[in-house]
Amino acid sequence: MNTRLCRMLGIGFPLLAFSHCRDVVAAVSRAGGFGVFGAAGYTPEELEQELRWIDAHADGRPYGVDLLVPENLSIRTGSGASNAELLAQIPSRHRDFVGDLLRRHGVDPDRALGERRRDDPDRPPPYQRETAERLMDVAFGHPIRLIANALGVPPASMMERARAAGIPCAALVGARDHALRQVEAGVDILVAQGGEAGGHCGEVSTMVLVPEVLRVAGNTPVLAAGGIMTGRQMAGCMAMGAAGVWTGSVWLATTEAETSPVFREKMVAARSRDTVRSRGRTGKPARQLRSAWTEAWEGPESPGTLPMPLQGLISEPAMARVNRAAEGGDAAARELVSYFVGQGVGLVEGVQSCRAVVEAFMGDFAAALEDMQALAEG
Amino acid sequence: MNTRLCRMLGIGFPLLAFSHCRDVVAAVSRAGGFGVFGAAGYTPEELEQELRWIDAHADGRPYGVDLLVPENLSIRTGSGASNAELLAQIPSRHRDFVGDLLRRHGVDPDRALGERRRDDPDRPPPYQRETAERLMDVAFGHPIRLIANALGVPPASMMERARAAGIPCAALVGARDHALRQVEAGVDILVAQGGEAGGHCGEVSTMVLVPEVLRVAGNTPVLAAGGIMTGRQMAGCMAMGAAGVWTGSVWLATTEAETSPVFREKMVAARSRDTVRSRGRTGKPARQLRSAWTEAWEGPESPGTLPMPLQGLISEPAMARVNRAAEGGDAAARELVSYFVGQGVGLVEGVQSCRAVVEAFMGDFAAALEDMQALAEG
Repeated sequence: MNTRLCRMLGIGFPLLAFSHCRDVVAAVSRAGGFGVFGAAGYTPEELEQELRWIDAHADGRPYGVDLLVPENLSIRTGSGASNAELLAQIPSRHRDFVGDLLRRHGVDPDRALGERRRDDPDRPPPYQRETAERLMDVAFGHPIRLIANALGVPPASMMERARAAGIPCAALVGARDHALRQVEAGVDILVAQGGEAGGHCGEVSTMVLVPEVLRVAGNTPVLAAGGIMTGRQMAGCMAMGAAGVWTGSVWLATTEAETSPVFREKMVAARSRDTVRSRGRTGKPARQLRSAWTEAWEGPESPGTLPMPLQGLISEPAMARVNRAAEGGDAAARELVSYFVGQGVGLVEGVQSCRAVVEAFMGDFAAALEDMQALAEG
Repeated sequence: MNTRLCRMLGIGFPLLAFSHCRDVVAAVSRAGGFGVFGAAGYTPEELEQELRWIDAHADGRPYGVDLLVPENLSIRTGSGASNAELLAQIPSRHRDFVGDLLRRHGVDPDRALGERRRDDPDRPPPYQRETAERLMDVAFGHPIRLIANALGVPPASMMERARAAGIPCAALVGARDHALRQVEAGVDILVAQGGEAGGHCGEVSTMVLVPEVLRVAGNTPVLAAGGIMTGRQMAGCMAMGAAGVWTGSVWLATTEAETSPVFREKMVAARSRDTVRSRGRTGKPARQLRSAWTEAWEGPESPGTLPMPLQGLISEPAMARVNRAAEGGDAAARELVSYFVGQGVGLVEGVQSCRAVVEAFMGDFAAALEDMQALAEG
């Protein structure tokens, strides 16, 4: 394919793969898709390490970076701040709730976590502007072909740097009005992400949101996102007018993924109705697998979720401990295991390599085109 | 188009239009689509009148009938029962709640309604098996080309009568497991209706549900439903593997529709986020336009909704009174106005004739096919 979007990104098949895992990003790009590394949660030093690895393993194929710089964040730290400032704001009621919940499921809430502890007091605070600028310093030092922002209009500096680097800047939107604002702000690519998507999402479905966003997008290419796990769905979205697709959940069930074996087993077993849009993981509504964790935050004993980024500072270390315990074979811990995943989880039937997934997309996409051609002729 | 589904229904363009309005059904069929008359809420005598009218106005083009015979209904009447038996079960608390709500919005809760009063004690009770059998007696006396059931596996008698009449029996499903049961029961066409649809719906989006249902449908054709308002979306669904589409909301904004002018104005103004999945109208979760009515049932003063069919016996007469008052220009009454409509309402930009909508579908569908062909060649 040689569409405008393909030329913008330097690819021949507009299948974008969002992942927090460098292995997935490199493998998808090598296989002919376009990997997008989700940098949220990484420190600048860690990001440097990950992108270096991708540069060494992507065979020169293009890839991108996605930051998560929320436009609206009720809790902001001071300049040069660290996690310590945020951690001090977590009420003891919430710490106790999580401690009790973990203990009830046989998980030691004080288990040592080693490196990359999200609640390390010295770590740069997540989602903050200053951290984002430092992450951008790193990202733009690599041969990225796309920069994206996941929550709201990208900061002006992101768009300026993208322009200077000659690469497009993309933004995720969950409603028509968000798309309007993004177009006015001058983003180069819109990602219309429906409410069935994993992670942060709105309520409008992909089927409705994509045409709604297309009507206000003008000349800006629109990628469809939310629930897309197959090349037939990709063809369907492009028949609706999308320039390509942005996918996430499908890569969580690959051999390269960062997900735990227990979570991958849960994905294969799960149906599309087993996800829930909950604030229990980040503090903003995000779709994830329903588990004892999400149930507890919705339950009668819940102290209520905290605003972003505080909720993540208690949920991420807790879930890391849960995963370790579950990997050790603990059935009670397993009940808590969850991760961001969309309704498309119901279409996951097994774990495959990223290359196999990209090739299945290409095969299904071609089959869909053939069927449409037969319809046009018949 | 000459697909298997087209041959089953005797049409050339697999656009099915569900409507409670005979004018819409006849107009869509005349224009080259396939109208499906939603008979729920009608008495056998009324249905006879409506179908006679359709026979006289459809120019011999094929159409179908949809019944709503819930597989699970907690409240059943005795054989030969009337509404009276059901009406006696409505708690006075609920009557008072509705009376107060209407009065607060300037609507007289005792306003006379004339004919076709849903809460006429002598009327056959809605959704009951016996009423359904009588409705089928009527439907199969007309040259219908499809019979459909909207909530659960069709009663055996529906499938037997359909087989005897040589016409297909369709069933709506909102989840993969429902589809499995329907296939086992032997339905001829599955309608995979996503959670963005107007009326009774599940939670899985059309984008995910259609491929999920296709995987278990075997040889049974699958129609996509939920959020579909344009020919491009129709092409997208067929690229995913659907045999055609089942639409509803798009016909509510036509000149022929039974909807009130006030509701049509609200549709044009509404965004996709202005709908809500609520039990406030029928007692089962059904997507509808958010209004003071749906808000009241979710609010702190709400007595809680009643099970189907009781909730409809209080909501329908109330909404009929609301509509009369709103048509009279009452702004407070207008706030209550609502009707079943899907998220696709965000794509409604004006009121058109049914023929114009069918033609727009055909034009957009052809344009999407051309775009896909260009992709295949480029």
